[in-house]
Amino acid sequence: MSEKKKVTPLSELGEFGLIDRLTRDFILRNKSSLKGVGDDAALLDYRGKEMVVTTDLLVEGIHFNLVYTPLKHLGYKAVTVNLSDVYAMNATPRQVLVSVAVSGKFSLEAMEELYGGIRLACETYGVDLVGGDTTSSVTGLTLSVVAVGEAEKGKTVYRNTARLNDLICVSGNLGASYMGLQLLERERRLFEESSSGVQPDIAGHEYILSRQLKPEARRDIIESFRELGIVPHAMIDISDGLSSDLLHICRQSSQGCRIFQDRIPIDQETARAAREMNIEPFIAALNGGEDYELLFTLPLGMHDRVKAMKDVSMIGHITGAGTGYKFVTDQGAEMELQAQGWNALD
Amino acid sequence: MSEKKKVTPLSELGEFGLIDRLTRDFILRNKSSLKGVGDDAALLDYRGKEMVVTTDLLVEGIHFNLVYTPLKHLGYKAVTVNLSDVYAMNATPRQVLVSVAVSGKFSLEAMEELYGGIRLACETYGVDLVGGDTTSSVTGLTLSVVAVGEAEKGKTVYRNTARLNDLICVSGNLGASYMGLQLLERERRLFEESSSGVQPDIAGHEYILSRQLKPEARRDIIESFRELGIVPHAMIDISDGLSSDLLHICRQSSQGCRIFQDRIPIDQETARAAREMNIEPFIAALNGGEDYELLFTLPLGMHDRVKAMKDVSMIGHITGAGTGYKFVTDQGAEMELQAQGWNALD
Repeated sequence: MSEKKKVTPLSELGEFGLIDRLTRDFILRNKSSLKGVGDDAALLDYRGKEMVVTTDLLVEGIHFNLVYTPLKHLGYKAVTVNLSDVYAMNATPRQVLVSVAVSGKFSLEAMEELYGGIRLACETYGVDLVGGDTTSSVTGLTLSVVAVGEAEKGKTVYRNTARLNDLICVSGNLGASYMGLQLLERERRLFEESSSGVQPDIAGHEYILSRQLKPEARRDIIESFRELGIVPHAMIDISDGLSSDLLHICRQSSQGCRIFQDRIPIDQETARAAREMNIEPFIAALNGGEDYELLFTLPLGMHDRVKAMKDVSMIGHITGAGTGYKFVTDQGAEMELQAQGWNALD
Repeated sequence: MSEKKKVTPLSELGEFGLIDRLTRDFILRNKSSLKGVGDDAALLDYRGKEMVVTTDLLVEGIHFNLVYTPLKHLGYKAVTVNLSDVYAMNATPRQVLVSVAVSGKFSLEAMEELYGGIRLACETYGVDLVGGDTTSSVTGLTLSVVAVGEAEKGKTVYRNTARLNDLICVSGNLGASYMGLQLLERERRLFEESSSGVQPDIAGHEYILSRQLKPEARRDIIESFRELGIVPHAMIDISDGLSSDLLHICRQSSQGCRIFQDRIPIDQETARAAREMNIEPFIAALNGGEDYELLFTLPLGMHDRVKAMKDVSMIGHITGAGTGYKFVTDQGAEMELQAQGWNALD
């Protein structure tokens, strides 16, 4: 009784037909987007503002597995992870450009799903799609997203400017996305090993799955900074894991750090899933990655203002150069932080 | 007696080590490049100027074949084809971001070759590398390049603004890159079919090979426009072939066109290679693609100023809507132009 889903081979449209089709429902919202899709380049006007540009490449089989990643979520995530980089500069994203390489196995309907997710992310974050490239690939799907944003002079925040005695803060909670991925991988293996097609058991894990499949970028934190008059000393978004990204800040700033296990924010669902899979929750939080939370440092004097912010935890402080990168456990033991985060080239 | 070439697996460096290594010899040349590689995003200052952004994805097996494409040339080309898009807006490129996905079969030395070409292009065109992403791929090499450039308000040139009776002009000559590709493909097949390893026969074809392997972007044309006070009505860079790209201008401008075979600029070496391979030279020029020449239209009154420009041919004129897209042969026959250019999704 089910309606047969229409499948249109991409070869029916050609490159330009496909671009037109995929981008026709996108509208330009920002004053700075003078000209979008349809010419050699997009035209933007950032007069009076500085601008930030960032780009990320997402490769099938490396960054995502289409067995359990809905294309709409993938499109959404491809945009939000780039917006997260713009927010991590204390800037506001305004435009994205999306390039897609697809093999013949994808249909127009699949591409429309993908662009549906891209459009939803553009709407949610108020950014404009203003360009990109669509091409074929020998195998699989590759996405490249560029995000452009505006910054106020003197308000951009870098990684290499943490100062001695700064508070180290993190938004939201950590390790959820990693546990979501572990769960998806476990269910994929069970499904593949079973001859009868075991149904995935994901009830009660909705939160960690959404953190993995459809992560959000922390626009709210940047907006709170503005309202509260806060400009952090240093900031990075957590894509490779708390350890790895905190080490980026410390090393680039020539500082040490000291963070505390009991301060690391971990959601109950993350902790439960971790224990189910025999993983220490704090290990998932330190090394998991793909959290897209903001990690930032600011002067001790800002303590009260940070306390007024929703969903921010103070997890430690910046120590001097040569003092090492310390993690203090609940038992008071000191461990050295290591960058065991996800390494795309391993 | 030959020195053994050092080969370093990428896994020895890790992602961040690789980025550091590949980008350490790049210096920032432009005032507008406030902050480059090494943070969440690049920081640019385009105050007082409008800016253009463009991006292209280059996929191994689709856009290039490493059997006959030296990595240094590939890096150079990946940058110049994006700069060409910026020039096609009548703008000046200032920054690029380069993302690379590589499989384990590539070594550090191979990546350094690639980045050597990227660096050479940056030096030649005075642009700064300010960011990008480096990741692994399941198979092969994918390059994504973003180019950012500055434009003067009111001086940017689009595709959809050609006017009735405009002269149609093109820089340089056409079809060379396509014939270079045909030659490389022919030699590859001969090599693969022979058991004894036939040596490639490319003597006398240096020009068409360089047009395919190491194309240049027409900065000189944009500079001449400025010197001569010319702002074209419409412009595009020829990447898909003269036919296809002229049709973009005509359709987006709601105009027709009429161009003449005897006006199409074709280099002698291109014509000779075409005849050797039983291809009509004008067909290579119309449909070849990857020329990265500028195709532009301007008012008849600019005729004398265009004549003063080096390396520009007037090939026809813009006719009214509904008059069709005409190609007039040497014999005076009229043919309809068709977009038979390279279509990445076929």
